[in-house]
Amino acid sequence: MSVRKICVVVTARPSYSRVKTALTAIEQHSELELQLVVAASALLEKYGSAVNYIQEDGFEIAARVFNVLEGENLTAAAKTTGIGILELSTVFENLKPDIVISIADRFETMATAIAASYMNIPLAHIQGGEVTGNIDEKVRHAITKLSDYHLVASEGAKERVIKLGEENHMVFNTGCPSIDLAKEVQADPTLDFDPYKKYGGVGRLQDLEGGYYVVMQHPVTTQYSEARKQVEETLEAMIQVDKPVLWFWPNVDAGSDGTSNGIRAFRERRPGNPFHFFKNMEPKDFLKLLVNADALIGNSSVGIRECAFLSIPVVNIGERQHGRERGENVIDVGHEKEAIVGALEELKARSRPSGSLVYGGGDAGAKIAQILSEVPLRFHKTITY
Amino acid sequence: MSVRKICVVVTARPSYSRVKTALTAIEQHSELELQLVVAASALLEKYGSAVNYIQEDGFEIAARVFNVLEGENLTAAAKTTGIGILELSTVFENLKPDIVISIADRFETMATAIAASYMNIPLAHIQGGEVTGNIDEKVRHAITKLSDYHLVASEGAKERVIKLGEENHMVFNTGCPSIDLAKEVQADPTLDFDPYKKYGGVGRLQDLEGGYYVVMQHPVTTQYSEARKQVEETLEAMIQVDKPVLWFWPNVDAGSDGTSNGIRAFRERRPGNPFHFFKNMEPKDFLKLLVNADALIGNSSVGIRECAFLSIPVVNIGERQHGRERGENVIDVGHEKEAIVGALEELKARSRPSGSLVYGGGDAGAKIAQILSEVPLRFHKTITY
Amino acid sequence: MSVRKICVVVTARPSYSRVKTALTAIEQHSELELQLVVAASALLEKYGSAVNYIQEDGFEIAARVFNVLEGENLTAAAKTTGIGILELSTVFENLKPDIVISIADRFETMATAIAASYMNIPLAHIQGGEVTGNIDEKVRHAITKLSDYHLVASEGAKERVIKLGEENHMVFNTGCPSIDLAKEVQADPTLDFDPYKKYGGVGRLQDLEGGYYVVMQHPVTTQYSEARKQVEETLEAMIQVDKPVLWFWPNVDAGSDGTSNGIRAFRERRPGNPFHFFKNMEPKDFLKLLVNADALIGNSSVGIRECAFLSIPVVNIGERQHGRERGENVIDVGHEKEAIVGALEELKARSRPSGSLVYGGGDAGAKIAQILSEVPLRFHKTITY
Amino acid sequence: MSVRKICVVVTARPSYSRVKTALTAIEQHSELELQLVVAASALLEKYGSAVNYIQEDGFEIAARVFNVLEGENLTAAAKTTGIGILELSTVFENLKPDIVISIADRFETMATAIAASYMNIPLAHIQGGEVTGNIDEKVRHAITKLSDYHLVASEGAKERVIKLGEENHMVFNTGCPSIDLAKEVQADPTLDFDPYKKYGGVGRLQDLEGGYYVVMQHPVTTQYSEARKQVEETLEAMIQVDKPVLWFWPNVDAGSDGTSNGIRAFRERRPGNPFHFFKNMEPKDFLKLLVNADALIGNSSVGIRECAFLSIPVVNIGERQHGRERGENVIDVGHEKEAIVGALEELKARSRPSGSLVYGGGDAGAKIAQILSEVPLRFHKTITY
Repeated sequence: MSVRKICVVVTARPSYSRVKTALTAIEQHSELELQLVVAASALLEKYGSAVNYIQEDGFEIAARVFNVLEGENLTAAAKTTGIGILELSTVFENLKPDIVISIADRFETMATAIAASYMNIPLAHIQGGEVTGNIDEKVRHAITKLSDYHLVASEGAKERVIKLGEENHMVFNTGCPSIDLAKEVQADPTLDFDPYKKYGGVGRLQDLEGGYYVVMQHPVTTQYSEARKQVEETLEAMIQVDKPVLWFWPNVDAGSDGTSNGIRAFRERRPGNPFHFFKNMEPKDFLKLLVNADALIGNSSVGIRECAFLSIPVVNIGERQHGRERGENVIDVGHEKEAIVGALEELKARSRPSGSLVYGGGDAGAKIAQILSEVPLRFHKTITY
Repeated sequence: MSVRKICVVVTARPSYSRVKTALTAIEQHSELELQLVVAASALLEKYGSAVNYIQEDGFEIAARVFNVLEGENLTAAAKTTGIGILELSTVFENLKPDIVISIADRFETMATAIAASYMNIPLAHIQGGEVTGNIDEKVRHAITKLSDYHLVASEGAKERVIKLGEENHMVFNTGCPSIDLAKEVQADPTLDFDPYKKYGGVGRLQDLEGGYYVVMQHPVTTQYSEARKQVEETLEAMIQVDKPVLWFWPNVDAGSDGTSNGIRAFRERRPGNPFHFFKNMEPKDFLKLLVNADALIGNSSVGIRECAFLSIPVVNIGERQHGRERGENVIDVGHEKEAIVGALEELKARSRPSGSLVYGGGDAGAKIAQILSEVPLRFHKTITY
Repeated sequence: MSVRKICVVVTARPSYSRVKTALTAIEQHSELELQLVVAASALLEKYGSAVNYIQEDGFEIAARVFNVLEGENLTAAAKTTGIGILELSTVFENLKPDIVISIADRFETMATAIAASYMNIPLAHIQGGEVTGNIDEKVRHAITKLSDYHLVASEGAKERVIKLGEENHMVFNTGCPSIDLAKEVQADPTLDFDPYKKYGGVGRLQDLEGGYYVVMQHPVTTQYSEARKQVEETLEAMIQVDKPVLWFWPNVDAGSDGTSNGIRAFRERRPGNPFHFFKNMEPKDFLKLLVNADALIGNSSVGIRECAFLSIPVVNIGERQHGRERGENVIDVGHEKEAIVGALEELKARSRPSGSLVYGGGDAGAKIAQILSEVPLRFHKTITY
Repeated sequence: MSVRKICVVVTARPSYSRVKTALTAIEQHSELELQLVVAASALLEKYGSAVNYIQEDGFEIAARVFNVLEGENLTAAAKTTGIGILELSTVFENLKPDIVISIADRFETMATAIAASYMNIPLAHIQGGEVTGNIDEKVRHAITKLSDYHLVASEGAKERVIKLGEENHMVFNTGCPSIDLAKEVQADPTLDFDPYKKYGGVGRLQDLEGGYYVVMQHPVTTQYSEARKQVEETLEAMIQVDKPVLWFWPNVDAGSDGTSNGIRAFRERRPGNPFHFFKNMEPKDFLKLLVNADALIGNSSVGIRECAFLSIPVVNIGERQHGRERGENVIDVGHEKEAIVGALEELKARSRPSGSLVYGGGDAGAKIAQILSEVPLRFHKTITY
């Protein structure tokens, strides 16, 4: 029996967190061999060096691809993708995978999809079919149209991919692999580490015993010039609250500097602020931190997915998660300070939300591996209508 | 009133032929300014130097982009696209267009779509929504998902694009601009030039008075290794027919060398063959040649579009045009010599097909220009379901 | 009489400062036309946005090229150069210059040299023939061997270029154009602006009346891992001195993050430090700041060139300027804190150094323009031995 | 004892032929490990698929890099080099060689030199220090300035590299490895194969018993537009001679199409010509063919090197080999038909030239391997004057 080589290209820290259990399941599957490629911001210290976690987790790295172009404009996002195609096509040429996996909808993951599909390598897409409100929207559905297999995270996503003209029997609702980790955390939610000691970071060290908030706000790429203003609203809102705030720096995007600079300027301007800033955290630790928090504030997809499963209240800001299916744990607000403060007030009056299975029950990784071992290998398809 | 800058990226000879009337209409529209970028194989002598025709036709070229990577494998197609993104993003950065146009579904036109959409430039796609049976299928629909405006060539295409989740009011059936030229030829179909004298080429010079066949067969990219075998079947079929054969070399594709080498080997092996080979021809002359021919044989889209309008019999080989709407002028066959010979026999027994308006009535160029002058400028969209 | 098109590619803030008077002289020369290309770190905010100064100085920009690849390793430097060649060859293809100018020896300026020489465009090199102790050494002399004209800054450099096998009559000692600006400052050295008000920056605001030091220390690329340690030595040394310290952030290099992070960590660790940090300054203002300072500390070439002409004491750290001709204004020291402190003590006991003409007398810009208008256009040369 | 990883980048068929014995010696050396990278035209069928010979010879290929950009102009040469840097830096990142070897002076081998030197990998250059009359001249000496070790092929080359400012003890005259193979052929020069049968090719099959000529003429890149005219002169000259002519197609260069098209047009125009055309031949067979020929005509470096050692008369056309040391076997002529014919007449009157050791005695491969195992590993150097 021949073993299928499954090449997964991880281009960012959050993508790694999201598929980690699938990587483990592929590695452990007797009929699959994992070829892990680490690329783009996943290699860069500035964006949290996902590569270090990957190595610590024991995965072997088949190739590294440096392709992030510096720049404060959208041109850099396009060029990063172009360089990615140049590099990944050589990687695929040498690794000769049977199936390539492109993850989600970050702009640079398009490079994975184009290199593989143009080279007639069967392409699987994890987390297609969702809806959001920015450039990711274009990227995600375009990748669906380049892909042969669709490993989606919810029923809504499955329906959407089928409507997009994909064959029914090539669309699989596996749930989201990020829920797999959440399930582990659910089994043992104790905050068994000191985040300050283990992860350092900068800013004030406050006692977390009496509750705390976690903030994670990413720039929204098609609203580049507003990124700074938006984060400032959130900063002003959080300074009014009565609990410690643990703030996570955003990951890379074309608007990254707007958000990051907003935070930096705030720290200069308000040296005595009560926030503590982290660059990153191991996914499991991050979920433990969340499950013990009063709420997550920002626009991270973690708020929509893992937090739904784990019954964590979320104040979701702006349109970044627009259109994604959600549990009852989310309050959606605009970017204004007042709205954010209001939502936090509202949360106090509510009881803890009940957990939701909308993004799966915690066995997505195993399902994905099994499907990859069974699907017919093909790279030729036709629209269904 | 400000004038909109419309940047059209032409990457190949057939793409130019197809949109020429739209280019003229954009140039002449008082509210539009044409920025014409010539790239990829459109610049190369080996593929017919479309750039020369473009200049002879009086268009000003805003930028030239050399991005075709040499190679006998599919990796080169991927890399050509990656380089295209790198280069076109700089071009767009400097030209600052209001709308970018990506034409049809050749693999490298994806570079136009990605560079523009990633840079938040409104993107119009000409000839989306069609169906064929190869890598173009993936490329075409992926570009639809990256595009803001859809200028499609038939009602079937319009319906399909809308099903793909695009907003109804952003999908316009303009007909195919290639029909515009066909309409001019219809008005005066006389073969008013000597193809041997005007275009040279190689091979035997036979009298065309008693009728002749035209062959144009392109490699089918997802069946790379078979390209050579397929063209050999057609060569063997055509050598049996009783009329002169005018054969056009294929344009660039990853399998190009397979087809081209098949033809070259045939010419070596059969030095006395009765074929004449042309590298290329001005589009209008090509249509005049076709309208006076007994039939077109091969897998060119001209057989499906212009020939439908002009009532020219076509033997369409293989699946390259699979799924495209067609008039009654087409007989579809497989790649085998016998099938091709049989279809040519069948044609003799038939009467001339009647003309079809399935790809429009000959005013697509003007319609396209008018739409581009009127659509709201936007680069932000959401799937409709 | 036809006008020669002179294309200058500026890739970094210090390169711009150095050639500014040559750009002006080319622009004003009746037989020359300036084509200014701004590329690499000269476009990036993170490295001081030289492009803004260029525009404020009234130069028209013919093209912008984003080509800096992000990364914490040397691979990024190589890739930045590769992308630069891809992009610049398209720029040259479209601008069709008669002569291209490559400036000095930063790694990415190799892209200018390769694109031009490979395209048979006569190539002029400004500031070849010097000696230093790092990767620049390889880059600089390699560019000499690719260049047709050599516009060097000192007699020592001229001799060296000739020894490298270049034809005597193609090597011109023009002096360094950076001295042209220094000459203007020499004529009016008053510190006629408030650096804190005009340039902001971060850190303590101290009175500059009683004297001050200026620090500018760049990472040394071939000692990547040591960059952080080295800057820490300098930081510790300067905290001991009795005068205000104005510190300039380093420009981009592969080791940049080491140096920058060293400074950032120091600021966190020692929040009450008496330093003020500037990101950048207009060249003329920077020279005025220097001419009124007690000394410049670090490894900037400004210490070797402009400071020699302007009689400014310099403590030159490490080997970055190793081998460059120098005036009597320089004390060379190693990276250790003690050596730096010792040199500053020694300076107090010395009298002001006398000015030196080793890098020219302040008319380099005009000389360069005149030479470019007169040299025979050629791109074909042979080694002289 | 640790084993040194020696990474050799082969970019073209002739480069492979030239270093083959060095590759074998590296592979067999107990302290060295060979990492063979095959790139550029060495991978392309159009240029003789050197990669096939490499595999047949039993070498393991560590990576393949497709980087040849198509085009009929010099821009493509620049871009090919840029892409090469992008790709090779990833290859080096993954292979982590101790020493990289760049071969000779083809334009694209600059990519090897830049990627390695920028990444602080010690760089060895084979065949620096020679003199010719085209773009190679710039490339070759620029690579010398980027290299740490110089493995040159003659005493003249050694002197020149030292004059270029390289340290005496890092310059080694090993002789040319191409002579190693010539020595084997010298030991057994029998033409023990039928070239028509073994290598096919096109054109007339003539009896070779009575003697024959071999032609190999490459385009001269800096005289792009003249390439076609020049090959036509040679074609006209050779048609006058009284012996069979075996003609080898040129390898890739920017002017390639000029030369190739000149030959193709000639074959169309003169269908009855008495020439036989080969695409390529195994190096050893090629030398056997030469040693039994009456003369080699053209501008190949084989005429200067191997033919000197093997006492084969050569008519060397044009300036491609200008300035290279030569034995008494060479008659230099211009490009005119008359000059070529005249030189062939002169040869008939001469006796066989005596063999020359100017390019070594046939042990270069072994010497190179031994030196690579012994040199200190370093990537930091300074010019010697």
